[in-house]
Amino acid sequence: MKERFSAYINQLQDRITSTLEEIDGTSRFQIDDWNRPGGGGGQSRIIENGSVFEKGGVNVSNVFGEFPDSMKSYLKVEHGHFFACGISLVIHPKNPMVPTVHANFRYFELYDDDQTIVDQWFGGGIDLTPYYLFDEDVVHFHQQCKSVCDAHNPSFYQTYKKKCDDYFWNTHRNEARGVGGLFFDYCRTNNERTIEQWYDFVTDTGDAFLACYTPIVEKRKDLPFTAKQRQWQELRRGRYVEFNLIHDKGTLFGLKTNGRIESILMSLPPTVQWKYNATPTPNSEEERLVRILQHPKNWLKH
Amino acid sequence: MKERFSAYINQLQDRITSTLEEIDGTSRFQIDDWNRPGGGGGQSRIIENGSVFEKGGVNVSNVFGEFPDSMKSYLKVEHGHFFACGISLVIHPKNPMVPTVHANFRYFELYDDDQTIVDQWFGGGIDLTPYYLFDEDVVHFHQQCKSVCDAHNPSFYQTYKKKCDDYFWNTHRNEARGVGGLFFDYCRTNNERTIEQWYDFVTDTGDAFLACYTPIVEKRKDLPFTAKQRQWQELRRGRYVEFNLIHDKGTLFGLKTNGRIESILMSLPPTVQWKYNATPTPNSEEERLVRILQHPKNWLKH
Repeated sequence: MKERFSAYINQLQDRITSTLEEIDGTSRFQIDDWNRPGGGGGQSRIIENGSVFEKGGVNVSNVFGEFPDSMKSYLKVEHGHFFACGISLVIHPKNPMVPTVHANFRYFELYDDDQTIVDQWFGGGIDLTPYYLFDEDVVHFHQQCKSVCDAHNPSFYQTYKKKCDDYFWNTHRNEARGVGGLFFDYCRTNNERTIEQWYDFVTDTGDAFLACYTPIVEKRKDLPFTAKQRQWQELRRGRYVEFNLIHDKGTLFGLKTNGRIESILMSLPPTVQWKYNATPTPNSEEERLVRILQHPKNWLKH
Repeated sequence: MKERFSAYINQLQDRITSTLEEIDGTSRFQIDDWNRPGGGGGQSRIIENGSVFEKGGVNVSNVFGEFPDSMKSYLKVEHGHFFACGISLVIHPKNPMVPTVHANFRYFELYDDDQTIVDQWFGGGIDLTPYYLFDEDVVHFHQQCKSVCDAHNPSFYQTYKKKCDDYFWNTHRNEARGVGGLFFDYCRTNNERTIEQWYDFVTDTGDAFLACYTPIVEKRKDLPFTAKQRQWQELRRGRYVEFNLIHDKGTLFGLKTNGRIESILMSLPPTVQWKYNATPTPNSEEERLVRILQHPKNWLKH
């Protein structure tokens, strides 16, 4: 399974970066290979200053070895060896009418002292962070998420949509980071599904990424915008930074396990602003966004 | 003691804001009073878009009541009432030749069920974060810190300088946030000093703030700078954000105890950049700064 998923994320990385490069038309992803001292490594692909994508990363990693101490307490195990691989991406477009997107698909294996697998599971998800709300874009995104879920289990979409809203919650701001999507974790063999069936679900979700996101980019990337709308985007990007550095388990886990800092923090936006007590004008589009982030809604039921 | 220190921080807030307004010449501090639902409140004073100061806050707070749950685990106590007051300031100048400064002076009281004081202590400090190194400025800053310490105890400067270097350490970047200053905590009655003597030390340090910082501002605020130097400042401000949101106990404590978010996050810089793998040119001034941040030095011994 680890070879299979590892090969999958490598080809998904290829597919996603080449499609995004095609859409951007100007910038190309810069490739950085890195090694992990404890075992394994990864490949970061970073795009910066594109015509469409201001900053983004599509990274894969394959790491293994003995548990670092921080991982022991995180996973609540005392010792052992692990293998983990995954693809993680964050794309920050230039135009504030185009949402930021994040996706992550990962696979873990834990071993006992005889190198026998004692646990294995998938996790991941995909979520959207708009700066201006085009309802039809959000509906499209969630509809794609639902289609891929429905092909596997009629309850998945509601379950993982809810988990996504719960996870990407900026508690100190009392609002969601974005308009959600899917979030799943600890997807392991159980009475209903084998690990192979989870593989199918996770890779189907990975395959759906481009269909979820690129139609929105194509539709909005050439819309005009004002300096004020750009400022709003930069202020909202500040909330993205706050979530990732204060709350995001993946980021904090990476920082604590001596992950590759530049690959982890590629998720941070290129230009960001903080203003004291910035509040949107009443009845503006900006205020409508904030209201919806404060009360995550069910996009497919209205 | 609580009335005395509370009165002190109020007048220090007045003194600092009026002096900084005078230096700025354009912008004035905007005053925001706020109440804490559990008891107490504070006053935030924020300056934005000044000629000299791009963003800054000089805040006081006086809060009291029953421990919030998060405070119990932080202070390792099971229940009880507390009083806390303090002044906290962060100033982000516009010109990259002028350093960012932070200072904080605080006082805590803990009570048992009969409202008897069971513990009381001071904490605080002052530290400097330059974007370009003018060694004489850093020496001036540390010399002022040392003078105020030496008047109380010949060992204080070395002790609190070291604590400052240790505390403002961005572990995930393996570098200091800035060039340090003083950091002290849990300054309580012991064999050598009464709480009144600690009061004298802490208020002397507070009184020294303007002498530490304003000569540096006056000297550097009108220096010319390039767009590239400004970009460097914004990239380094990113590290300031990383420290405050990932490591700073004060910030995380505030966020977890339902502190006033806008007053806590006033410390975040106005405009910030993140670039993938941004590294300074070899032998540049930017590289010299980073080298010194990676190896905190003793500014008064060379």
